[in-house]
Amino acid sequence: MQYNPVTKKIVAELAEIVGAKNVLIDPEKLEGYSHDETPIDQYAHLPEAVVFPGSAAEIARIVKLANRELIPITPRGAGSGLSGGAIPVYGGIALSVEKMDRVLEIDDDNMMMVLEPGVITNSVNEEIEEKGLFFAGYPMSVLTCYIGGNIAENAGGGKAVKYGVTGRYIMGLELVTPTGEIVELGGKLLKDVSGYDLKQLIIGSEGTLGIITKAIIKLLPRPTEQVDLLVLFKDVKTAIKAVPRIMTDGRIIPTGIEFMDKLSVKTSCQYLNEKLPYQQAGAMLLIEVDGNKAEEVEADAETIGELCMENGAIEVYIADNHTTRERVWSVRRNIAEAFMVVSPHQSLEDIVVPIAAIPDLMPEIERISDQYDLQIPCYGHAGDGNLHATLVKNPAHTLEQWYQIEEKALHELYLAVKKLGGTISGEHGIGYKRRPYLESTLDPVALDLMRKIKKAFDPNNIMNPGKIFELE
Amino acid sequence: MQYNPVTKKIVAELAEIVGAKNVLIDPEKLEGYSHDETPIDQYAHLPEAVVFPGSAAEIARIVKLANRELIPITPRGAGSGLSGGAIPVYGGIALSVEKMDRVLEIDDDNMMMVLEPGVITNSVNEEIEEKGLFFAGYPMSVLTCYIGGNIAENAGGGKAVKYGVTGRYIMGLELVTPTGEIVELGGKLLKDVSGYDLKQLIIGSEGTLGIITKAIIKLLPRPTEQVDLLVLFKDVKTAIKAVPRIMTDGRIIPTGIEFMDKLSVKTSCQYLNEKLPYQQAGAMLLIEVDGNKAEEVEADAETIGELCMENGAIEVYIADNHTTRERVWSVRRNIAEAFMVVSPHQSLEDIVVPIAAIPDLMPEIERISDQYDLQIPCYGHAGDGNLHATLVKNPAHTLEQWYQIEEKALHELYLAVKKLGGTISGEHGIGYKRRPYLESTLDPVALDLMRKIKKAFDPNNIMNPGKIFELE
Repeated sequence: MQYNPVTKKIVAELAEIVGAKNVLIDPEKLEGYSHDETPIDQYAHLPEAVVFPGSAAEIARIVKLANRELIPITPRGAGSGLSGGAIPVYGGIALSVEKMDRVLEIDDDNMMMVLEPGVITNSVNEEIEEKGLFFAGYPMSVLTCYIGGNIAENAGGGKAVKYGVTGRYIMGLELVTPTGEIVELGGKLLKDVSGYDLKQLIIGSEGTLGIITKAIIKLLPRPTEQVDLLVLFKDVKTAIKAVPRIMTDGRIIPTGIEFMDKLSVKTSCQYLNEKLPYQQAGAMLLIEVDGNKAEEVEADAETIGELCMENGAIEVYIADNHTTRERVWSVRRNIAEAFMVVSPHQSLEDIVVPIAAIPDLMPEIERISDQYDLQIPCYGHAGDGNLHATLVKNPAHTLEQWYQIEEKALHELYLAVKKLGGTISGEHGIGYKRRPYLESTLDPVALDLMRKIKKAFDPNNIMNPGKIFELE
Repeated sequence: MQYNPVTKKIVAELAEIVGAKNVLIDPEKLEGYSHDETPIDQYAHLPEAVVFPGSAAEIARIVKLANRELIPITPRGAGSGLSGGAIPVYGGIALSVEKMDRVLEIDDDNMMMVLEPGVITNSVNEEIEEKGLFFAGYPMSVLTCYIGGNIAENAGGGKAVKYGVTGRYIMGLELVTPTGEIVELGGKLLKDVSGYDLKQLIIGSEGTLGIITKAIIKLLPRPTEQVDLLVLFKDVKTAIKAVPRIMTDGRIIPTGIEFMDKLSVKTSCQYLNEKLPYQQAGAMLLIEVDGNKAEEVEADAETIGELCMENGAIEVYIADNHTTRERVWSVRRNIAEAFMVVSPHQSLEDIVVPIAAIPDLMPEIERISDQYDLQIPCYGHAGDGNLHATLVKNPAHTLEQWYQIEEKALHELYLAVKKLGGTISGEHGIGYKRRPYLESTLDPVALDLMRKIKKAFDPNNIMNPGKIFELE
């Protein structure tokens, strides 16, 4: 694909659309828009210009311009992504939605909310808490990420076992297509089978099929009761084996079942100066149950605690007040960030296998760890079979060695995952980082159909090019 | 689109693929494959041949043949559809999956099940009941419909308020594409963002993007407790107004909230020789709550009953044992069938509006009913905003008058729905029946994108042509 540069004439035209103060071309300021949370040394690319539109109409004009001039355009939320989805790998225009951050409507009667894409996910719940309503999206970056990015990546998070992922709560979308048309998909509707489910196709398409300019999200009655269990196990295998038992033997679908190995807990605790009792345990589960009746939630928590003890737990700690819960969850939420401090040279993975196959995956990870002489701490959403195995550079290796080892180890990890019926990303996306690996792990017919859809939506391949797959 | 006929040579080739006994060409036997549950006089079309393949490999060969010879191919489940989706409107080959009816696997550890498309939906739950597992799909045709058809239409039903529609439980699909390739989408995975969500695109695409040959469905722990409330209201408006209050004021998401007006209850009761107390009420709600703790379910039922009384209910009957529940639900499930006996000349609709807009929809339906002098009984899934308003021919009108009135009245109904932010189908699909109306009710950019996807998947337009939209 041959793209054209962002010339002075183009910059002037962009300024005409969004106002001069909403166009960045100062090289120093561009740097902040060259990366997301993936390692900068490996993945960063500078955009030629950054624009900050304020409306769908402005975005439509920018996209029409980019499409006409064959300039790549990379939509960007909070930049908290973990697959390089917001990196302008071919330069061109980075389009940030950070100025489109308004809550447009809180519709109590329909239990829905209308948002611009730049609303911070955590603030959604702050807005509606006192109305007794609740948005079930809970990615670990909830304090900084944008709802638009959550939709583009179909973010999962810590409550997905019970509530499902972001996509379940997206009832309507406004989108600017890669040819610059504004289209409304869905609405304040709980059911809709009028034609193909384009809304669901856009969710998780990583900004390659258009730019989300508005979202209608579904709310739930806010659960009033919540209990978290921190369960200590002697080792990873025992902890992981207990996970499916909670759902099958316990017949309980907890809100979340998070898994953390010792290295993950220790690193995050040190980072936060927090003292969880990690010394004695090789692995932990953080299990949350919620509901509207205290007795019921407590009974579920008790059943789960008993089941864990029957399945080899060392100890069960109960966090039933906000402060203790927040302490424990903070450790979980900050693992990725804590490892960033330890070493920026790492590969944070997002593999998924059938939950019953998790115990078979662990020896594979150990084998890869031994073979390449690198640490692979492991944590994540065990209740979904979604684990954030993280390959961390061995300080004894040179950077060049690390890049080679990383590639080989990832390839082996993904093949092990594939053999167990799994997939290489559950919530972070393929993006730029995993693009080289999709081809060898996905059904080739499926990949071909995806490419055809991309071409049908974006004939000039200007919308977030270089993500998920390359076009021929 | 110009198609070729099914010649003797083609029939011989089909017989070579599936065996001679699995190809029908006898005109008398073809009739049964010319229609679904839409009125035969208006929509039926004969296929030229019916085939009964036994495997994905056979289907792939049939589709390759049809694609090579430009012969339309219409996939067919149980024929219980309500939008003409399984009608071979251009003749050609009807492909019935009725011989692919095996349960391939019950995977307790992953709480999933692998099914062929011809498995009857109700038998799914029969297979797993004693394991304490549960499939949440519950279309009203549950006793006869196939899981493959449920997926193709993204069927809703009576438990969707709490559990969502069919698509939520489809974790994996095997599909034969319109060019005859076999592709695996998803798997036994609770999360998957590796590329575009093709699985979700196939769900609800009404057999126009391929033929489903296998499905992996997600199971839940079977709720042990269930209570149904039959709530009588003096009129439709009062009943409908109480619906959003249950969820917003009551902060309870019931399993289902079904609505039936007096005419619907009366007609179904007469058909079943059942004596519900319909004389005194202008409308009824049938509200179900389920869970695993008797006290909790009873408390929810009580709260809902109280809320209904506060919102104008005349009386609340509680059905807390299997026999009574089955009596009440049988009345609900048989409404459509009962009206078929009263008059085959009718239009069973499937409109959806935001739940808070239901009260505004009712006067519109009354207005249309008055204007065209025809009865429009109304029932359906009020908790989803999904109502089966049914236009029934006035015996005083000729058949010719009825067809004209039907077209005009439908057009007005759909425009009223659109004005309220709604859509023309929530679970039955567009199919052949609603195809003429989609164009005027859907965003034209969305429709254009759908056509592009169809062309990308099916360049020769041989896969269930004439459904959802015509291609240019």
